[in-house]
Amino acid sequence: MPALVKTALVGATGYAGFELARLLMRHPRLSKPMLFYREREGSHPENLAEVFPQVAGNGSCELEAFAWNRLKNAGLDLLFLATPHEASRELVPQAIEQGLRVVDLSGAWRLKDSRNQQVYGFKDDATAAQISSKAVYGLPELQGEHIKAAAVVANPGCYATSIILALAPLVCGGLLDVNHGVICDSKSGVSGAGKQPSQRTHFVEVAENLSAYAVFGHRHTGEILEQLGLAAEQVVFTPHLLPIPRGILSTIYVRLNQPTTVAAIEERFRAFYGGKPWVRVFASPKLPEIQFSLRTNFCDIGLALAPDGQRLVLVSCLDNLMKGAAGQAIQNMNVMFGWDEREGLH
Amino acid sequence: MPALVKTALVGATGYAGFELARLLMRHPRLSKPMLFYREREGSHPENLAEVFPQVAGNGSCELEAFAWNRLKNAGLDLLFLATPHEASRELVPQAIEQGLRVVDLSGAWRLKDSRNQQVYGFKDDATAAQISSKAVYGLPELQGEHIKAAAVVANPGCYATSIILALAPLVCGGLLDVNHGVICDSKSGVSGAGKQPSQRTHFVEVAENLSAYAVFGHRHTGEILEQLGLAAEQVVFTPHLLPIPRGILSTIYVRLNQPTTVAAIEERFRAFYGGKPWVRVFASPKLPEIQFSLRTNFCDIGLALAPDGQRLVLVSCLDNLMKGAAGQAIQNMNVMFGWDEREGLH
Amino acid sequence: MPALVKTALVGATGYAGFELARLLMRHPRLSKPMLFYREREGSHPENLAEVFPQVAGNGSCELEAFAWNRLKNAGLDLLFLATPHEASRELVPQAIEQGLRVVDLSGAWRLKDSRNQQVYGFKDDATAAQISSKAVYGLPELQGEHIKAAAVVANPGCYATSIILALAPLVCGGLLDVNHGVICDSKSGVSGAGKQPSQRTHFVEVAENLSAYAVFGHRHTGEILEQLGLAAEQVVFTPHLLPIPRGILSTIYVRLNQPTTVAAIEERFRAFYGGKPWVRVFASPKLPEIQFSLRTNFCDIGLALAPDGQRLVLVSCLDNLMKGAAGQAIQNMNVMFGWDEREGLH
Amino acid sequence: MPALVKTALVGATGYAGFELARLLMRHPRLSKPMLFYREREGSHPENLAEVFPQVAGNGSCELEAFAWNRLKNAGLDLLFLATPHEASRELVPQAIEQGLRVVDLSGAWRLKDSRNQQVYGFKDDATAAQISSKAVYGLPELQGEHIKAAAVVANPGCYATSIILALAPLVCGGLLDVNHGVICDSKSGVSGAGKQPSQRTHFVEVAENLSAYAVFGHRHTGEILEQLGLAAEQVVFTPHLLPIPRGILSTIYVRLNQPTTVAAIEERFRAFYGGKPWVRVFASPKLPEIQFSLRTNFCDIGLALAPDGQRLVLVSCLDNLMKGAAGQAIQNMNVMFGWDEREGLH
Repeated sequence: MPALVKTALVGATGYAGFELARLLMRHPRLSKPMLFYREREGSHPENLAEVFPQVAGNGSCELEAFAWNRLKNAGLDLLFLATPHEASRELVPQAIEQGLRVVDLSGAWRLKDSRNQQVYGFKDDATAAQISSKAVYGLPELQGEHIKAAAVVANPGCYATSIILALAPLVCGGLLDVNHGVICDSKSGVSGAGKQPSQRTHFVEVAENLSAYAVFGHRHTGEILEQLGLAAEQVVFTPHLLPIPRGILSTIYVRLNQPTTVAAIEERFRAFYGGKPWVRVFASPKLPEIQFSLRTNFCDIGLALAPDGQRLVLVSCLDNLMKGAAGQAIQNMNVMFGWDEREGLH
Repeated sequence: MPALVKTALVGATGYAGFELARLLMRHPRLSKPMLFYREREGSHPENLAEVFPQVAGNGSCELEAFAWNRLKNAGLDLLFLATPHEASRELVPQAIEQGLRVVDLSGAWRLKDSRNQQVYGFKDDATAAQISSKAVYGLPELQGEHIKAAAVVANPGCYATSIILALAPLVCGGLLDVNHGVICDSKSGVSGAGKQPSQRTHFVEVAENLSAYAVFGHRHTGEILEQLGLAAEQVVFTPHLLPIPRGILSTIYVRLNQPTTVAAIEERFRAFYGGKPWVRVFASPKLPEIQFSLRTNFCDIGLALAPDGQRLVLVSCLDNLMKGAAGQAIQNMNVMFGWDEREGLH
Repeated sequence: MPALVKTALVGATGYAGFELARLLMRHPRLSKPMLFYREREGSHPENLAEVFPQVAGNGSCELEAFAWNRLKNAGLDLLFLATPHEASRELVPQAIEQGLRVVDLSGAWRLKDSRNQQVYGFKDDATAAQISSKAVYGLPELQGEHIKAAAVVANPGCYATSIILALAPLVCGGLLDVNHGVICDSKSGVSGAGKQPSQRTHFVEVAENLSAYAVFGHRHTGEILEQLGLAAEQVVFTPHLLPIPRGILSTIYVRLNQPTTVAAIEERFRAFYGGKPWVRVFASPKLPEIQFSLRTNFCDIGLALAPDGQRLVLVSCLDNLMKGAAGQAIQNMNVMFGWDEREGLH
Repeated sequence: MPALVKTALVGATGYAGFELARLLMRHPRLSKPMLFYREREGSHPENLAEVFPQVAGNGSCELEAFAWNRLKNAGLDLLFLATPHEASRELVPQAIEQGLRVVDLSGAWRLKDSRNQQVYGFKDDATAAQISSKAVYGLPELQGEHIKAAAVVANPGCYATSIILALAPLVCGGLLDVNHGVICDSKSGVSGAGKQPSQRTHFVEVAENLSAYAVFGHRHTGEILEQLGLAAEQVVFTPHLLPIPRGILSTIYVRLNQPTTVAAIEERFRAFYGGKPWVRVFASPKLPEIQFSLRTNFCDIGLALAPDGQRLVLVSCLDNLMKGAAGQAIQNMNVMFGWDEREGLH
C-alpha cells in the first residue's frame, strides 16, 4: 500500500472550500488534510464543524488561521487554494518559491491572453507573468497530459467548464461554423456567487426571480475563448442567476458546417469522451437537467438538432461546486498523482 | 356614467382563469362577471372562494358549471374562455353562432398557417377554418386596430408575447439580419404548465432544478413566426422550466444589419412603444428581472450590445399569468370597448 | 369631496417601507405622499423606481434624503416611519414636538412594561418615557378607539399580530386555561428579517432550510404579553425562518377551561370579529395557509379541536409586509381619520 | 473476508426506494442488490437510470417488475419493501412464508395497538395479527436488541423518528410531566408526501406556502404514543408541509417535572445516546437546522430552556429520506447482521 499523500487547503470556510474540505477528508489516497481559513477579524473557529455543523460527528476536522510557517516541515505534497483571486495572486508565487505544487480554484491563473486578463485588473508583475505562462488550465478532459506535470493547476470556472466541455468535440473536430457565432446562455445557482452576503444574494432578491448579468463582460468568457481557440467576436455568453442554491445549465446555440444527423453528433461526442469518466453524453431526445448531476462530479451533455440538420442546441449541466469547483480540483489532483480520475469522487 | 358591461368567464378555476376572474371582478367598467367551471366529475364548488380561499371576504363570487342556457337572456357583451384548446375549438363556434364576441386564452385560434397549426392536431373543419381566418391575434401593441372590431380575439401565448414584443421594433424596422437567425432562450415559472398535477410539475421534480423542453417543437413557435413574418429556419426557441411559480424571462440573441449604438436602439424601442402603457423599455445597462413585472401587466424589455455594435442581446420579462394571459385578456377587452388600455389593470 | 390628506414616509427603501409607499401612492384619500430615505453614504436615488424598478411606468415617485426642514410648510397630516427602532426613538420625539401625528412601524414604542423593553436596550429618558406611555398599540381590531385619537401609533410586530389576533377572542372571553401555558410556534418568510444583507439571509443559507431562533428571547414576546395580559411564564414563543420571501403562519396550542365544541369556538371568533373586515375566520376543518393571505391585509384564523374538547390548535396566517407591517399601517391611518378600514387596501 | 450479503428491494422507483437503492448499491457488505418496481401499466424501465438519470454512469443497475419467482434460488438474505402500506400488508406474509427476513419502510407493521391501527383501515386477519405482534419497530437507538433477531422490522415513520428520539431520554428517565402534555410541531419537505403527483404536491401550491394538515389525525401519532408509552390525551402532533424537497424539523414543547439546568439535560441526552453514532446532541444555545442533517443519516437534537428551568423546547432535525426512511433501513440492516451501525452510511 502506497504512502498517503499530504494536502492542505486554504479557504476551507467558503462554499467551494467547504465542499473541497469534505472531499479531501474522505479521499482514500490522502492523509488527513490541513484545513485553513484566511485570517479575519472576529471569529476564530477551531473546527470546521463550528462553521458547518453538517460535518459534526464525523471525527475531528481542525481549522486554523493560515500562516506559511504552519506548512513548514509538514511534508506537504499539494496545496489547494480556495481563495479570492487577489489572494491567490499573492499566495501562489510564495508557494512556488517553497517548491509546492498548487491547485488554485480562483480565476487568478486561468488566462494567458492579457486582453482577457484585463477584467481582473491584475498588476503588471514579471514573476506573475512567468507563473501565468506555466500554469495549466485544469480541465482534465482536455488538458490531462499537461496537468500531470503541472506545478500550478488553475481550476476552471464553473460556467466555463459547462460550456467548453459541450463545445470541445465540435470545435476540435472543425465541425462548427464558428464565424456564425456561438451563443452560450447559462443559468447558475447562487452558491456560484460566493458566501459573502450582498444585496444580490439576499434571499428575497433571488427567490421568485431570474436575472441576466454581466452580458458581454463576464470573466469566464476569456476561458472559453482561450480553451476553444475562438475570437471574442465569435462568442456571446450570458449568465443568469437562478433561484436555487447550486447547479448550472448552459444552453448553447451553434451552427454546423454542414447538415448532419443526431446519431453522428452523438457518436462524435461519445468518441471524444470515451474513457472520460466524468462526462455523460445523453441519448437524444433526453436532455440533461440540473438535478441529474447535482452533488456529483459529472458534466452532462445532451443535444437537439433542427430539421435542417445544421442548427444545433446543446444542453450542458453540472454542479458548480463539484465539477465546477471542488470536484474538478480533486479530479485534477487525481491526474497529477496518476490515480484513477474517479478516486474519492463517488 | 355609461352602462356597465356584462362578461362571463368559462374556466375560472385554472391558474390563468382565476387570475382573470379576479381582474374581472374589480374592473370598474364591468358589472359582476358570471364565473363558470367546466363540468367535471367530483367537486361542484358553488363559490370561487371554495377553490381559492384567497378571495374569501371580498364579497360573493358565485361559481357554476358551464352550460349555454345559463347565458341566455343574460345580456352578455363579452365571453372569456380560459379553457384547454380542445374545448375552445368547440366552444368558440357555438359562441359565434349566438352572436357573442369572445376572448379566448387558449392556443385554439392563434395560428393562421396550417403548417404551424399541425402541432395542435386540429381536425379539418370548414367552420373552424372560417373562424380561424377571422380571429385576431390579441397582442394590442401590434394588432390594436384589428382587435377593436374583432369577434374572436385569440389571446397570445405567454412565451410568444415576451418574444414578439422584444423583436417587433427591430423586425418591423428591417433592422435585423433575420437570415443570420434569431435565438430565443426562454425561462418560465411553473404556473405556465397549468394546474393539472403531473410528474413534471411535482414540487420535488421542479425545486432545485432547471430543464429545457420541447426544443424545436414548442407550440408557441408558430405565433412568433406568423406575427413577425419570419420563416421556421430563422428562429430557434428553447423554453425552460424555472423553479418559481410565475414569471417569464426571455433572452434573445440577434444580429443587426449594420453596426449601431445602444442609444439608437433604445430610441427605436421608445418610439415604437410610445403611448403603449404596458411595455417598459429599460435604459441600458439596467436589465429587466422577473421580479420587476411580477403581478403586473408590464412587458419589460432591456438590451446589451456587443462592442461590434451588431450582436445584440435582448432581455424580456413578463408575468405569464398577467401580460402572458389574464392581464392581456383584460387589455384586449379594453381595446375592444374603446377604453383606456390600463383600465382595471393597476 | 373632502380635501386629500397629506402624508410623508421616512424609510421608503426597505421592504416594509416600499410596500407602504406603494399603498400610500394609490390610497384614494391621500395626495401624493412624500417619500424619504435616511441619508446614507453612497447611493442617492432620486426616484423610487431606481431602487425598485417594479414601480416604473406608474408615474413619478420622487425620493429624497430625509431632513426635517423638508416637512416645513408641507401641511403634513401624518408621518409614517419605517425606520429601525433606534432611529424611531430619535425621530418620534422630534415629530411630536412639531405637532405631527405618527405611525411608527418599528418596535420603538410598542411596549409599556420596562421589563419587556429591556430586549431593545433603550436609554432611560424622561421624554421617551412620556411618549411611550401615550403611544397606542396599533392593532385596530383591539385598540380601535384608542387609535382614533392617538398622536403616536406603534404599529405591531408581524409575529405578534398573528398571535394576538388568534388568541384575543379566547383570552378576552376568559375561555383559556392560561396557567396551563400558551405555545406559539411561528414560521416567517425572510422579508421579516429586513433588507440588510447578512449571512443569515443569504439565499444559500435559507433555501432548503428551516431554523428556529431567539427561543425564549424574541422581541415580539413582550407585545403578546402586554396585549393579552399574560405573564411571561404563561407564554412560549418560538419563531422559525421559512425559505419563502414573505408570509407568516403561527400554530398556537392552548387548553380551554372546559370542554367545548368547534362550533362554539368558531361562533365566539365570528362574534368577536364581526364587522372587522381584515380578519377571516375559517370554517373547520379548513385551515389557513400562507398563500391565502399573501399580498392581502387579511389575518386568517382556523382551528382544530382535540376529541377531548379542550386541547385546541389555532392556525393563524398573514402577510408580514401587509397585515404584519405596511397594510396594518394603512389600516391604522384609516382608523385615525375615521375612514372605512378597507380604504386603499383592496 | 466474509461473504457478501444478498438483498432485494421492491419499490425502487419511489423517492425513499430510490434513496435506498443507491445506499444498497454502495454498501460494502452487500453484493449487487436486486431492484424491483411494482408492475404498473405503461412504463417498463429496465434500468434505474431510465427513471433516475442521476445514477447513469455508475455501472449497471437493472430494474425489473417484481414477481416472487424472481427471488427463487436467489439466495436472498434480506428483503426491503419500499411499497405503499396496502402492498406491504400483502407482501410481508408471503415473504415470511418463504422464510425471508424483511425491512418494511411502510406503515403496515409499525403499530401494535388496534386503536392506533384504525387510521390505516387494515382488514381483520389472523395471520396479519400474528406478524404484527412479532414485528419490531425499527428504531435502532431504542430497539437495537430486538432488531437483531427480528424477522420483520417495521422501519419508523419520518416524523415519528424525529419526535421519539428527541423525547426518549426525558420520557425514559421519567423527567417529563407527561400529564401536562407534549406538543409536537413538525415541518416536513415535500418528498415525505411521496412521488405520486397530486394537487397538494403541485409546485405552484407548495412554493411560497406553508400549511398545517392532519391535525389530531396523522398516522404517525400512534408510533409516538406506543414507543414512548404515552396516552393519546398527552400528545398533540401537528405536521406542516414545507416548500423544500426534503428534511424535517420538529419543535417539541414539554414541561419537566422539576426545575433543572441546560447542562443537566444535555448531559442526560449525551449519556442516553452515548455510543449511538447517528444522534448528534447540540450544545446550547446552538440549535439544529434542517440543512445540517440533509443527505446524512443523523438525527440532530438541540434544546432551549425557559428561565423557570421547567419549560423546555426541543428542536429535532433529520432528512426524511435518510434517517426518516432509507438511511434508517440500512442502519436496521446493519444491526440485524451485527455490523457497525455506520456501515454504508458515510
